[in-house]
Amino acid sequence: MDLTKMKDPKFLKQLSVEELEELAMHIRQFLIEKLSVTGGHLGANLGVVELTLALHKHFNSPKDKLIFDVGHQSYIHKMLTGRTDQFDTLRQYKGLCGFPKMSESEHDVWETGHSSTSLSAAMGMAVARDLKNENHAVVPIIGDGALTGGMALEALNNIGHEKKKLTVILNDNEMSIAGNVGALHKALGRMRSAGKYNRVKDEIEYLMKRIPAVGGKIAQTAERVKDSMKYFMVPGMLFEEFGFTYFGPVDGHDFKDLEENLQYAAKTEGPVLIHVITKKGKGYQPAESDKKDKWHGVGPYKIDSGEKIKPVDNKPAWSQVVSDAVEKVATTDERVAVITPAMILGSKLEKFQKHFPDRLFDVGIAEQHAVTMAAGMATQGIKPFVAIYSTFLQRAYDQMVHDVCRQNLNVAFGIDRSGLVGADGETHQGVFDIAFLRHLPNIVLMMPKNENECQHMVYTSLQYNDGPIAIRFPRGNGLGVPMDDEFQNIPIGKWEVLEKGKDAVILTFGTTIEMALSASKKLKKNGINIEVVNARFIKPLDVDMLHEIMKREIPILTIEEAVLQGGFGSSVLEFAEENSYYPKLKRLGIPDRYIEHGSVKNLLEEIGLTEENIVKEANKLLQPQKNNKKRA
Amino acid sequence: MDLTKMKDPKFLKQLSVEELEELAMHIRQFLIEKLSVTGGHLGANLGVVELTLALHKHFNSPKDKLIFDVGHQSYIHKMLTGRTDQFDTLRQYKGLCGFPKMSESEHDVWETGHSSTSLSAAMGMAVARDLKNENHAVVPIIGDGALTGGMALEALNNIGHEKKKLTVILNDNEMSIAGNVGALHKALGRMRSAGKYNRVKDEIEYLMKRIPAVGGKIAQTAERVKDSMKYFMVPGMLFEEFGFTYFGPVDGHDFKDLEENLQYAAKTEGPVLIHVITKKGKGYQPAESDKKDKWHGVGPYKIDSGEKIKPVDNKPAWSQVVSDAVEKVATTDERVAVITPAMILGSKLEKFQKHFPDRLFDVGIAEQHAVTMAAGMATQGIKPFVAIYSTFLQRAYDQMVHDVCRQNLNVAFGIDRSGLVGADGETHQGVFDIAFLRHLPNIVLMMPKNENECQHMVYTSLQYNDGPIAIRFPRGNGLGVPMDDEFQNIPIGKWEVLEKGKDAVILTFGTTIEMALSASKKLKKNGINIEVVNARFIKPLDVDMLHEIMKREIPILTIEEAVLQGGFGSSVLEFAEENSYYPKLKRLGIPDRYIEHGSVKNLLEEIGLTEENIVKEANKLLQPQKNNKKRA
Repeated sequence: MDLTKMKDPKFLKQLSVEELEELAMHIRQFLIEKLSVTGGHLGANLGVVELTLALHKHFNSPKDKLIFDVGHQSYIHKMLTGRTDQFDTLRQYKGLCGFPKMSESEHDVWETGHSSTSLSAAMGMAVARDLKNENHAVVPIIGDGALTGGMALEALNNIGHEKKKLTVILNDNEMSIAGNVGALHKALGRMRSAGKYNRVKDEIEYLMKRIPAVGGKIAQTAERVKDSMKYFMVPGMLFEEFGFTYFGPVDGHDFKDLEENLQYAAKTEGPVLIHVITKKGKGYQPAESDKKDKWHGVGPYKIDSGEKIKPVDNKPAWSQVVSDAVEKVATTDERVAVITPAMILGSKLEKFQKHFPDRLFDVGIAEQHAVTMAAGMATQGIKPFVAIYSTFLQRAYDQMVHDVCRQNLNVAFGIDRSGLVGADGETHQGVFDIAFLRHLPNIVLMMPKNENECQHMVYTSLQYNDGPIAIRFPRGNGLGVPMDDEFQNIPIGKWEVLEKGKDAVILTFGTTIEMALSASKKLKKNGINIEVVNARFIKPLDVDMLHEIMKREIPILTIEEAVLQGGFGSSVLEFAEENSYYPKLKRLGIPDRYIEHGSVKNLLEEIGLTEENIVKEANKLLQPQKNNKKRA
Repeated sequence: MDLTKMKDPKFLKQLSVEELEELAMHIRQFLIEKLSVTGGHLGANLGVVELTLALHKHFNSPKDKLIFDVGHQSYIHKMLTGRTDQFDTLRQYKGLCGFPKMSESEHDVWETGHSSTSLSAAMGMAVARDLKNENHAVVPIIGDGALTGGMALEALNNIGHEKKKLTVILNDNEMSIAGNVGALHKALGRMRSAGKYNRVKDEIEYLMKRIPAVGGKIAQTAERVKDSMKYFMVPGMLFEEFGFTYFGPVDGHDFKDLEENLQYAAKTEGPVLIHVITKKGKGYQPAESDKKDKWHGVGPYKIDSGEKIKPVDNKPAWSQVVSDAVEKVATTDERVAVITPAMILGSKLEKFQKHFPDRLFDVGIAEQHAVTMAAGMATQGIKPFVAIYSTFLQRAYDQMVHDVCRQNLNVAFGIDRSGLVGADGETHQGVFDIAFLRHLPNIVLMMPKNENECQHMVYTSLQYNDGPIAIRFPRGNGLGVPMDDEFQNIPIGKWEVLEKGKDAVILTFGTTIEMALSASKKLKKNGINIEVVNARFIKPLDVDMLHEIMKREIPILTIEEAVLQGGFGSSVLEFAEENSYYPKLKRLGIPDRYIEHGSVKNLLEEIGLTEENIVKEANKLLQPQKNNKKRA
């Protein structure tokens, strides 16, 4: 079967259940093979093969709008809409995006990456449809994990109230990233175990209508009897309370069950929710039997054994370094507790959890709650360490402004995946954190040059008692430097000169330090001596050192793997302005646009964050100033 | 009765119901009198007099933690904890804060202002309590409106799961700001109408326990029968689904009912929710009979008639100017629709709503959903105008990053209450919006110099089809300038010279333009000619004009009523750096700390945003440069 011939999902409408099953098998084989080379979100996609086929058979994309929440489970959708031949380039530079992408296909009507946005987007599309008197379906496909995000709950509440026609597909795989938590999850469990309930075939609605209408107190009681009966029959009463008509649970791997419920739903007025049970990793033994969701997103692997083919890298993962350091501090400091929004695996907190099961709080996909809960803990003398990805902290910006920084509470943050993250692309690049954090009063923001300094920063953040403090650190592995046995307290706001030099100075931190050092070495061969400073505190700046540097009146190059607007370099410009210095200064960093997926190396080259470019810019700075642009 | 003698709420424990009722009456009288002079959140506080007394009688503050969501309903709490004598200074500069404030009292254990934070904070405190093996109550008091905020729903989900002991007081006044919306609200309505249910006295729990334990399929059915019976008896099944034990509905003005339920709740394991029905404005006829929530927050009024004593100001409110302009455009442009997160009154959208009931979407307190719903609408060719306060847009930062700006969608924003807002203080100052928006790719950000330019900006924003565009405008009233009959399209990124001058140039926008112009007049008398530029586009900058200015090599003063870090002035510094200019430049704006409550005039003086200071800084800039700080 040549899957690359699939260009338009319309062909599915002609297929029998047997043919669909065959196609599903071929798609699975294709994905297992392709992803064994490229890596990608295997588990999630294997779980939704039948579901995606059923949706594309039943609906008419792109007229009907399929909205994939998070979007990493859109591979089958991509295959059905003519992109099968691009899977060799999946998540690679200029290749197929791992998430829905409008520029790739008219069938991608909404772009995702972060979770819990699909219901709000769907509501917007349904409203637009009705305003324009159009007639099409709007179908958000959301996982049980994403449903606990506050934004999805806000949308659920609003949709149920407005009664717009919407078909929510709840893809319940009993296992979002790192296992699911929350009361909603328990409620889903009850629904699952309640057994199949086919509401349309049932007589309950009919029976309930026959309860005679009465007035006054009796009417209320009658109403409650009705609700009560309904509660007995309909497992998804929680959703019914929110104003949805609930269908399910549906076997997400059974085409007949899926189609039947989609048809019932089509005949129903207002918003419906179809509760579909799927199995992550379905059809590939290693992934299917995976209890810890380690097949959620994977690198290359051996198909037969499921063995992961890891590039040889004995350097420790940054996340592990941070997690280990927090654990070590927690051993002697009872105040320390960790909060994670559904990222026990990603933030490598398994060991910590085992060691301190009562001091690890996985709140699910709920970043706002995570941050303000930490603030609440801090008011009572607990020292919370919030382990969170840079892009996901964006969800809790107001909680940083309003709860943590305004009350100046002792909350420590480990901001993971700061800087470019590579294959996950635009939605996951952790490049805004400096710009959205450094203008907040009271916060301390730092970034380590290597994993040894990183452990000291973790220690420092947990010793610090003057307000919020955050460590940003990159995705991937450290440098492999030796680790000190004893923690050190790093003086707040003190930078470190790594390389002395008299001709110019580079101020940088984190990942770009290594390229600055090697650029400096190259320049030295040409007789140019560049000072390289580990500007490990992004806020507060090392004002003493800055005064000293600015007084030397040598050119300054700032380098950051973060957006330039409002970034670190700007804060150095601000310092100069405040103190009436007029340095010859050049900022290198990420320009004012979103950065797509690709290897970090490719991306750094694209934006000019390379040793070569640093050498070039340093040389430029050292050229004499043109006359027409002198200081006023 | 001398209410100023109340210093510690312990005295309440001795009071009989009759004595409590008398005290409640005196407190009401006090508030009605005091607020008739100072203004404040009258309606909300009159509604919770008995509730606050009952809570302080039952619990032991500050050992037990009372957490007031939003916090504008904490006046009685402030009175009971020794602050009655400070009410003459309520919400005034250096006076009593309108929200809980830790520095005022040890009984204020959590500061608020924005809604929906109390449950997360409470969860944090409960976790801390258990980690420290302490024993006290944690009591978040949250309104029905605040409950729909995504963060509160995230917390509900997490608390119900973790089973921490927590006493949530749901203050259901059937009317949060501008009426309530959402499915949850409907569910609350059903609970209210279900009539009083006293779960503890009831036999149902006992009966249910007698259903014999059985295995297999029958066990499931038995479980469902139980749930079903419970659903019949317990009105708050929605909360029970979330893992809470529900008590209520309780009459929030009946001390006996309140105390009884608080006692039951105390005996219950895990999280409980007490559903208290209160009446906003209770005890003051004009407020009590107010159907439109116009007594939520008020200025001074005449006690007898309830007539508002407005300072004479015939200038139009900024919000009204914006709303009227959107309405006018909507009359001829069918694509236009408005979204508001619970701010129909605040954003003065009543007239629009009457005119276009189908094109106004009040999504309740749900800023994240509001913004991404708008993005969804934009994908379908609708032109959404999101009317939102500056500080509340902070809640939707990630939605701006990830959904609106990244997909470059045509969403227009009216950012209300930008800049200092005065009496509401720290939590409501709209001073971060430039810093958190201007680093986002694709966005256009502008601010009008007067209400006539404002209407043109609204028109421009709704004509613009190249991505997101936002107008920030201040709280309060415009300048009273004449309004053009015809809309004008303002060229994107084009500034306007208001006053020519050769000695220096002031770049500013919005509220600070008037003071810049009058400073310029003063300087002119001393022979100094300052150019004043209306830098109405904060992003993109007017690069043509900036090149022209920088080439003139005259000093530049930037002025903004917004935080300096990463602000507009910084973007001018960035422009200079990018283009190798070295201007003598000084930035005026808001320093790196939170600004408390007070009149805007007081606050501007405090931070040096005054005509006098502009004159002073301009003079400084015009002095010859000192030698030791020249350009490198």
